[in-house]
Amino acid sequence: MTFVYETEIEWTGERAGRLRAPHLPPLEVSAPPEFDGREGAWTPEHLYVGAVASCFMTTFLAIARNSKLEFASFATTASGKLEKVPEAGLQMTEIVLKPRLVIHSIGDVDRARRIIEKAEKNCLISNSIKTAIRVTPEIYHHQDPVFPCPTLPA
Amino acid sequence: MTFVYETEIEWTGERAGRLRAPHLPPLEVSAPPEFDGREGAWTPEHLYVGAVASCFMTTFLAIARNSKLEFASFATTASGKLEKVPEAGLQMTEIVLKPRLVIHSIGDVDRARRIIEKAEKNCLISNSIKTAIRVTPEIYHHQDPVFPCPTLPA
Repeated sequence: MTFVYETEIEWTGERAGRLRAPHLPPLEVSAPPEFDGREGAWTPEHLYVGAVASCFMTTFLAIARNSKLEFASFATTASGKLEKVPEAGLQMTEIVLKPRLVIHSIGDVDRARRIIEKAEKNCLISNSIKTAIRVTPEIYHHQDPVFPCPTLPA
Repeated sequence: MTFVYETEIEWTGERAGRLRAPHLPPLEVSAPPEFDGREGAWTPEHLYVGAVASCFMTTFLAIARNSKLEFASFATTASGKLEKVPEAGLQMTEIVLKPRLVIHSIGDVDRARRIIEKAEKNCLISNSIKTAIRVTPEIYHHQDPVFPCPTLPA
């Protein structure tokens, strides 16, 4: 089982370009302002962190469906740390994922937590990178009176 | 020197979500059709390959400017191979970059080739991943009569 994903980027001037892929809407991409790029465009750094976040989400969705976990909503933040590493140069050393999951049944808290852990371990992007991934899930019940706080106990 | 890049993805139904980052246009992201997603949306796989392609380009642009290399155009395709790896599961094992650079001076061919190689080695996304990167550059002269073919000799 092998799949191939094609993209193309063409320089459009300064430190920016147009990223395209077959049948997908084109995306303006620039170096970030701290590397002489312009504000307001997607950057290689954001695409990388976004790839990890979205792969984690789609893997969670697949496992949750297989496990028949019922939930009302799912979102995750992903925060990538870029720093200079001796001998290696600039590296994205860590990405912190903070998923917030709202479940329908209090009895599902532990199972939901395990599915979130499994989603990180099975994400094909996590599998392909050196960047350390840390996951700090928050699981809520949909009837929580002060939703989305507080976190349910593990 | 540490920088942080933030993104957030929120589930919007089925196998898809909305990817956002501060001050950037939101992006609809879905699992690809082969993993029960819908056609026509950016996928984690495309974002990952696009992160590598765009980082390679912006790194090339930075080094080319520092080296005062003059060029008319730059574009690169990036093709990522996803496959099942024993013990590890699904992994993006290889990304092939095919940059096409059009230079102003024939005398710059070797230097341009070295700058392309250096761009791959210094790209912070390449530095952060296990995926093998292969680069097969094509360098043309802007007065080449059958531009963009043939490739100039190395």
